Amino acid sequence: MSVTAAQGFTAAGIAAGIKQNGNPDLALVVNTGPRRAAAGVFTSNRVKAAPVVWSQQVLADGELTAVVLNSGGANACTGPQGFQDTHATAEKVAEVLGGQGTEVGAGEIAVASTGLIGVLLPMDKLLPGVEKAAAELSAHGGEKAAIAIKTTDTVHKTAVASKDGWTVGGMAKGAGMLAPGLATMLVVLTTDADVDAAGLDAALRDATRLTFDRVDSDGCMSTNDTVLLLASGASGTTPAQADFAEAVREVCADLARQLIGDAEGASKDIRIEVVNAATEDDAVEVGRSIARNNLLKCAIHGEDPNWGRVLSAIGTTSAAFEPDALNVAINGVWVCKNGSVGEDRDLVDMRFREVVITADLAAGTETAVIWANDLTADYVHENSAYSS
Amino acid sequence: MSVTAAQGFTAAGIAAGIKQNGNPDLALVVNTGPRRAAAGVFTSNRVKAAPVVWSQQVLADGELTAVVLNSGGANACTGPQGFQDTHATAEKVAEVLGGQGTEVGAGEIAVASTGLIGVLLPMDKLLPGVEKAAAELSAHGGEKAAIAIKTTDTVHKTAVASKDGWTVGGMAKGAGMLAPGLATMLVVLTTDADVDAAGLDAALRDATRLTFDRVDSDGCMSTNDTVLLLASGASGTTPAQADFAEAVREVCADLARQLIGDAEGASKDIRIEVVNAATEDDAVEVGRSIARNNLLKCAIHGEDPNWGRVLSAIGTTSAAFEPDALNVAINGVWVCKNGSVGEDRDLVDMRFREVVITADLAAGTETAVIWANDLTADYVHENSAYSS
Repeated sequence: MSVTAAQGFTAAGIAAGIKQNGNPDLALVVNTGPRRAAAGVFTSNRVKAAPVVWSQQVLADGELTAVVLNSGGANACTGPQGFQDTHATAEKVAEVLGGQGTEVGAGEIAVASTGLIGVLLPMDKLLPGVEKAAAELSAHGGEKAAIAIKTTDTVHKTAVASKDGWTVGGMAKGAGMLAPGLATMLVVLTTDADVDAAGLDAALRDATRLTFDRVDSDGCMSTNDTVLLLASGASGTTPAQADFAEAVREVCADLARQLIGDAEGASKDIRIEVVNAATEDDAVEVGRSIARNNLLKCAIHGEDPNWGRVLSAIGTTSAAFEPDALNVAINGVWVCKNGSVGEDRDLVDMRFREVVITADLAAGTETAVIWANDLTADYVHENSAYSS
Repeated sequence: MSVTAAQGFTAAGIAAGIKQNGNPDLALVVNTGPRRAAAGVFTSNRVKAAPVVWSQQVLADGELTAVVLNSGGANACTGPQGFQDTHATAEKVAEVLGGQGTEVGAGEIAVASTGLIGVLLPMDKLLPGVEKAAAELSAHGGEKAAIAIKTTDTVHKTAVASKDGWTVGGMAKGAGMLAPGLATMLVVLTTDADVDAAGLDAALRDATRLTFDRVDSDGCMSTNDTVLLLASGASGTTPAQADFAEAVREVCADLARQLIGDAEGASKDIRIEVVNAATEDDAVEVGRSIARNNLLKCAIHGEDPNWGRVLSAIGTTSAAFEPDALNVAINGVWVCKNGSVGEDRDLVDMRFREVVITADLAAGTETAVIWANDLTADYVHENSAYSS
C-alpha cells in the first residue's frame, strides 16, 4: 500500500521530536530507480511556504530522487531563514543517502511541510530525524510514512491501483485541496510504470483538476499544498498514457474521498452534483458556490433540506441559468422545481453521513461534482481552541 | 427616531400573525409629502424574491408613497403565486390608504419581505394585518415599525442624523449586506429634505457602497436585501448634495455597525482595515477575502492572533502585493512584518468584542474597511437547529 506499493521505492516514518506530543512527524520517500521522473502540483496561493518554493524549483528538470516531509510546522511566512532551513533539510537528505551509497544532490530532493504558519522549524530535531528516518528506509515503510504526515487527521490515508504489471500508490494528509485548499494537503504518489516527466505531469494535472481541486471542505486555501508523483520505472512497463492517467485519477479520487471523510469537525460529506450546465466551468463555479455557503453547510449539519440556501448560492454565480428553471434535489427528492417549491421536503432522509445535492441548471449538458463538508460546532472548536 | 424622525412620514408596526410566535411581523411606512421622491438598492443575487422584483419595478419612476414590510416569510422562490401575493399586498396598501384619503396606486407601494425562503406567505393573515397597521399609522410609529421587521435580530436598529433644518433617519434588520448579503437585510431610510430622485439615488448608492456593502458577516448573499430612501420634502429645505450624501452615509454607517454588532451567534466584531493598497478595488478584495476565511474567523473567536491565516487569505487574491512585503497588525500589534514573524503575538489583547485587523499591502496608498464577525458554535446552532 501507500508509497511503497509500487516497486522501486523505500520509505520511513519516524518521530523526530518536531511535534511536542512525541507523535511521528517526519517521513522520507526514496525512489531507488532505475528512473527518476517526477511531476508536481502546488498551491495556487501567492503566499507560498518555503518548501513549496523549493520543491517547485527542484522539479523544474522533471526529476526527483526523494521527498522529505514533516508535520508539526508549515515553515510558511518564515522569511529567508525558513528557506535556508528547507535547503538545509534537502542537503541533509542528500548527505545521508550518499552515505548509503546513493549519489544524489540536494536539487533532487523535494521538501514538504505542514503545521502552524509563521514558526521556524526546530532544525536541531529535524536534521537528526532525517538520519533516523534514512536508517529505517524500507520497501515496507509506506504505512509509517503515511502516519508521520498526519496533523489533525484522525486516520492515515493511502490508496493503490494495480494494473497489468504496474502500480500507482500514494498517501495523503489533511482535509484539503489545491486551489483553493484548507488545512494543508500533502500527497505523494509513486509508480513503477516507466513514464517520462511529461507523461507524469499530464496525468497528474488531469487527475488533480478532477479530484483534489474539487474538494472544498472549508473554502480556505493553504500556503503549503503539495502533490508529487514519482516514477521509478522498476516494472519495466510503459503503459498507454490514457491507462496511466486513469490509474492516477483513480488513486487521487480515492485519496480525495478519504480527505473529505476525515475533514476537521465534519459530520456530513456532501456530494454536490451540478448537472445540465452550459459549460464545465459553469458547473464548477456553481458547485463551489454551494460548497462554500456557510448557511447551507449549517443546515446540512442540522439535517435540514434547506433548498432555499442552495438557490441563493447559485444566484451569486455568473453561470448561465434562468432562476425559474432551476431544479434542486437533496438525496434524490426534488424539493425545488422550476425555481419554486417542489416535492415535500419531509420526504428527504438525511440521517446518513453522505448527503447528495443535485443542482440542475437546465442550461446545457455539462456536469461537475464538488465534495464539501458541513459546518459544525466541532469545526469551530478545532479551529478556535488552539493555534493550528 | 427611526423612519419617523424626519417630518412628513407616518409608520406603524403590528402583529399580523405571520410569525407563529405572535411577535410583531408587519410594518408600514407612509410618505405624507409634499414630495414622493425615492431611490432603492437591491440584492445583486440573480435569484430575487418576488418583493424585490416588484419594488425594483415600482421604483423605476423614482417615486414611492409607502413601503410595506413583513418578517416571518421571505416570499422568495415562490413562483408566479409569490409575485401575485406581493402585488396583492401592494394593492391592499393602496386600498386602505385610499380609504384614509390618500389617493395612491399599487405602483407607488414598495414591498419587502424577510424570513424562510420557499414558503408562500399566509395572505389570510397578511392582508388584514395591512388594515390593522394602517389604522395605527402615526408620526411616532418609527420604533414599532423597526421592531416589526426583526427576525433573528436581538435588538431593533434605528439611526438618525439631524442637520440644518432637515433630517435623515432610518431602520434596519438583519446582520447583512447587499452584495453579497446574508440573513436578509432590510433598510428603510426617510428624509424631509427636498431632494429629487436622482439626488437620492446618487447619495444612496454612494452610502451603500461604503457601508452595507462592506459588511460581510458570513459571506452569504440574500435573495431579499433591500435598501430604500424616501424623501418627503416636508422641511422645505434642499441641502447641498455633498451635505445630503454625507448625512445618508452617516446614518447607513451607524446602521451597518449595528448589524455587525448583532450578527447571528457572533461574539466578536472584526474591523478589517486594508491599507497601502494599489487600488481601492484591491483593498476591498483583500478585505473581503480576510472577512470570509472560516479558519481565521474561528481563530478570532478563540482570541488567537493567528496572522498566518490572514496571510493565507491575502494570498488567494489578485491584488497587487509582494508576499515578503506584507505587514499585519492585530489590535495594533504588528505580529507580521515583511511577510514573516513580527512582534510577539502574546502582546495582542483580544478580550474585547471589537477586534481590529490591519493588513498593509505595501503597494500603494488606497484603503478600505470591511466589517466581519467571528465564526462560533452559536452561529452553527442558530443556522442548523431549525429552518431559517
